[in-house]
Amino acid sequence: MTVSADQLPSWRETSAKQEIVEFVAAVTDPDAPDFVPEPDRVAVFDNDGTLWTEQPVYAQLVFAVDRAAELGHPTSLEKLQAGGMAALIELVTLTHTGITTDEFDARCRSWLASARHPRFGRPYPETVYQPMLELLGLLDRNGFSCWIFSGGGTDFMRTWTADVYGLPPHRVIGSVGETEFRTGAGGPELIKGTTIQVINDGPQKPSSIHRHIGQRPIVAAGNTDGDLAMLQWTAASPHRTLQLVVHHTDAEREYAYDRDPILGSGTDQILAAAADHKWTVIDMAADWANVHPAR
Amino acid sequence: MTVSADQLPSWRETSAKQEIVEFVAAVTDPDAPDFVPEPDRVAVFDNDGTLWTEQPVYAQLVFAVDRAAELGHPTSLEKLQAGGMAALIELVTLTHTGITTDEFDARCRSWLASARHPRFGRPYPETVYQPMLELLGLLDRNGFSCWIFSGGGTDFMRTWTADVYGLPPHRVIGSVGETEFRTGAGGPELIKGTTIQVINDGPQKPSSIHRHIGQRPIVAAGNTDGDLAMLQWTAASPHRTLQLVVHHTDAEREYAYDRDPILGSGTDQILAAAADHKWTVIDMAADWANVHPAR
Repeated sequence: MTVSADQLPSWRETSAKQEIVEFVAAVTDPDAPDFVPEPDRVAVFDNDGTLWTEQPVYAQLVFAVDRAAELGHPTSLEKLQAGGMAALIELVTLTHTGITTDEFDARCRSWLASARHPRFGRPYPETVYQPMLELLGLLDRNGFSCWIFSGGGTDFMRTWTADVYGLPPHRVIGSVGETEFRTGAGGPELIKGTTIQVINDGPQKPSSIHRHIGQRPIVAAGNTDGDLAMLQWTAASPHRTLQLVVHHTDAEREYAYDRDPILGSGTDQILAAAADHKWTVIDMAADWANVHPAR
Repeated sequence: MTVSADQLPSWRETSAKQEIVEFVAAVTDPDAPDFVPEPDRVAVFDNDGTLWTEQPVYAQLVFAVDRAAELGHPTSLEKLQAGGMAALIELVTLTHTGITTDEFDARCRSWLASARHPRFGRPYPETVYQPMLELLGLLDRNGFSCWIFSGGGTDFMRTWTADVYGLPPHRVIGSVGETEFRTGAGGPELIKGTTIQVINDGPQKPSSIHRHIGQRPIVAAGNTDGDLAMLQWTAASPHRTLQLVVHHTDAEREYAYDRDPILGSGTDQILAAAADHKWTVIDMAADWANVHPAR
């Protein structure tokens, strides 16, 4: 198919959009020197801050705090920020383990149905970025397989990513805790255990891509230094590649920041790498005509 | 499409073939009570002894022994069997780690090109089971996605499974060692490290299926007790399901055995479960007209 710019209506006519459209046209044209066969058209995306809003705190963390309160262990974001990674792991253990994968799935869905973003007043799944939804669609229609490699929990993400992004569960990979197979009263089940097997951030992302895809991507998108290794790994493909860095510059419509809300990953390294290698930096305020989907 | 029995020409007209054909017809007919929508048609297969010959020893182990000899550390299968799991891990560390994923890939391909099965005199990839290739094709044409969950190494398998089974690398999951991302002289690379993260056997298989697919399969095939949990997990799907147990009864054309060659998994439990739950036992000598592909 021909790549037409009006498949990205929420993108303004700036260089970011031009670079995306030109790249897709070049790698999908069988007569172009940069043509990439369809099975090699793999695209990987960070999630929090790249595909949906991560401020003022990750949705999954709000879920965990709400769930802890239900379980009689109220905490607060201030306490968590003071307690650092140890407090975070304690909270995750309390709220994400000791139950079956099916029960966890049901709890996430129930929370998502009622929780609202504190600033935008809409369900969290509606804080996705409309321009990125259009980009996922453009890539999908052009023979790409799109995958998510996020620091968020795999089981949490998969409860909403099929509906929101149209991605099957196997294409959504995040941090992972152990699960234990056992035969319970209702038959075989998987119990979510307390050992965290993978924190899917930073240099772990290329390892996870190797494990889950087994191919080197040609498109990668992220927004903090925790995504740098994923973009570097992608850039080293023998094919022509595209790197996208979502830069949060829009305090009016979303947020303006250079540090992620909880783990504190900065953006210095990824923005420096983008400048060095001429990666595409998406200036949210300038490049996007809309941020979130219309309600 | 209509399921036609002649899509399985290497299967004799026995109950095993009838059960497969009837199952596929029932779950793919939109008007049938057992209809399963296409995205839910997930099928999982063990590899060694289920899709290809694992006797007299796993191909990957022969690769490791050959590679150890090249590296100046000759060993023998007798020594390995005497040394048990510790000797096996030492051999894997020597032959599978300390190199990049790209280098490992190249070594496997080079070995596969020259190695020959000691009894059949053919390259290992030609010791696949022709009837199972036909089954993979039948399922693929009927909207199933087929995955492999094997105890073998993911990186080893992916060097030949695309050509032999037509499966993309992300659908081939086995045991996994850590990889470390670093920027070497040739750019970003992944080094295979010595920590074994997953031994993908027994109760680990349902956990790996949850992690890599995120859906419960409706078809599962295995051949030893190490596959029992995978078949139990599949059988507990709310959809109609099919469980296949490949029983090695054919000393003349392949091997007759009830214990896998190195790790020693038996078949008592899986055959007992098959009898209890009326799973389909494939009697290789009786049910298959051909075992390996014609040369």
